[in-house]
Amino acid sequence: MKNNFIHDRVLSILSASIFSIFLISCHSARMPASWPNSDKDFMYQYSIIDALMAGVFDGNLRVGDLKPRGDFGVGTFNKVDGELIMLKGKVYKMSADGSVKEVSDSDSTSAAFVKFFKADTTIYFNEPNLSYEKLQEYLVEKLNANTIYAIKITGSFSSMTTRAASPAKPPYSTLTAHLGEHQKLFNYNNTTGTCVGFLLPPYLARTNVPGFHLHYLADDLKAGGHIFKFNTNSVAVEIDFAKGFTIENNTNAEFLNVNLKPDRGAELKKIE
Amino acid sequence: MKNNFIHDRVLSILSASIFSIFLISCHSARMPASWPNSDKDFMYQYSIIDALMAGVFDGNLRVGDLKPRGDFGVGTFNKVDGELIMLKGKVYKMSADGSVKEVSDSDSTSAAFVKFFKADTTIYFNEPNLSYEKLQEYLVEKLNANTIYAIKITGSFSSMTTRAASPAKPPYSTLTAHLGEHQKLFNYNNTTGTCVGFLLPPYLARTNVPGFHLHYLADDLKAGGHIFKFNTNSVAVEIDFAKGFTIENNTNAEFLNVNLKPDRGAELKKIE
Repeated sequence: MKNNFIHDRVLSILSASIFSIFLISCHSARMPASWPNSDKDFMYQYSIIDALMAGVFDGNLRVGDLKPRGDFGVGTFNKVDGELIMLKGKVYKMSADGSVKEVSDSDSTSAAFVKFFKADTTIYFNEPNLSYEKLQEYLVEKLNANTIYAIKITGSFSSMTTRAASPAKPPYSTLTAHLGEHQKLFNYNNTTGTCVGFLLPPYLARTNVPGFHLHYLADDLKAGGHIFKFNTNSVAVEIDFAKGFTIENNTNAEFLNVNLKPDRGAELKKIE
Repeated sequence: MKNNFIHDRVLSILSASIFSIFLISCHSARMPASWPNSDKDFMYQYSIIDALMAGVFDGNLRVGDLKPRGDFGVGTFNKVDGELIMLKGKVYKMSADGSVKEVSDSDSTSAAFVKFFKADTTIYFNEPNLSYEKLQEYLVEKLNANTIYAIKITGSFSSMTTRAASPAKPPYSTLTAHLGEHQKLFNYNNTTGTCVGFLLPPYLARTNVPGFHLHYLADDLKAGGHIFKFNTNSVAVEIDFAKGFTIENNTNAEFLNVNLKPDRGAELKKIE
């Protein structure tokens, strides 16, 4: 933990306006990326959320081929078998049986959102019983609504509620229908670990999840999953601005057949 | 023109089903791209259509920096000063005064959509007085609704109607408001040249233009612009499937300030 740990919410709110100026100056100073893209400051994603929502539960990207695209991120596996968490270049699966394991490079993903994580700034929150919801409000107030952010939250959580999906059997239904019957909820107390994910702007509707989307990984690998809520007294929030994003389409034949015309935004909010 | 020029629409329609099978097999055979991305089979775009719609008319990407990202595509320039056409690596501006000129690398764009064009397949149409609208119907019937395509149409056009925007003065209004007062229409007869652009799936709503978006460039540089309609007796349609796309956010400060929450899909349809 750094020396400038902010113990006082008043101080924290006062710093918000200064922080905003800092953000704007950071953006203005950035030059366009070189291309062909060896620039690691782009989010990369395999497939799109709407395809997953529509039931494209299998993909052709191996975990070993996901790793050169980022070292940090979230996703799922083929058959929506559990929650994918990538942290420090390693890929973990939180399964519906509650286990968390590092996965083999030969496993495949049907949807994954990753980035090479390098914090541009860190904000420390120290507030008794701070909820995930309240933390989101603080961050939204401080951050820019049109920017792509990778978000890493580390600390101890007095409570943490997550879900993990159990694998689907073909023929696949929609993601909402599958989760309705096959998602397991987990309630943890006093767990220490990392929340991994993104805060995305509205123009990533249909392709990704606008707003916050974080998965949890406990340091001891005894907890994890797609985060619904938590409470904490103290966390460090590392924020990494991305210059943009790359989407690689799922090459599974089902991707070509599925109906991607409907706006699934309202449906997505129900399951996030 | 190739030997397999299809003179008969019946033959052309019969070939559609075979063509569809060919398309699916092409997709299935493709392996994920290597990354960091030196893969040229991705569309690249600078900024997003919703930002342009909302009035972010300036950007920081120089034409010279756009060229390493593709050799083919469409867009506009700062101040929405004319229509951008990139063909065979050269960038042209169709201005509201009707002139078409190759532009300097030091010009800048506020929005551009480009790709390294390499046709995966070519379809020849030979039908008296074939309209742009009817050609779109034929192509939509043959192509996959969820795939990103760069489209190059070459031939002679008995009629061609385009528009070019004249430059806006700050403070900028929305694109719809600007075009309402400052777009010039052009009607050409018997012009020979190339239609350059994309056919995009619905999940690129908000970021790009779902459906067809083509700009025209006459071989003699005496005609050009954003295409509204045309008629032809004979064209070659080259189709290049993209594996995905990269979006680089506009680094102009206005991009951070503009409201990107509204769904501008209906508004976009009115001006396309």
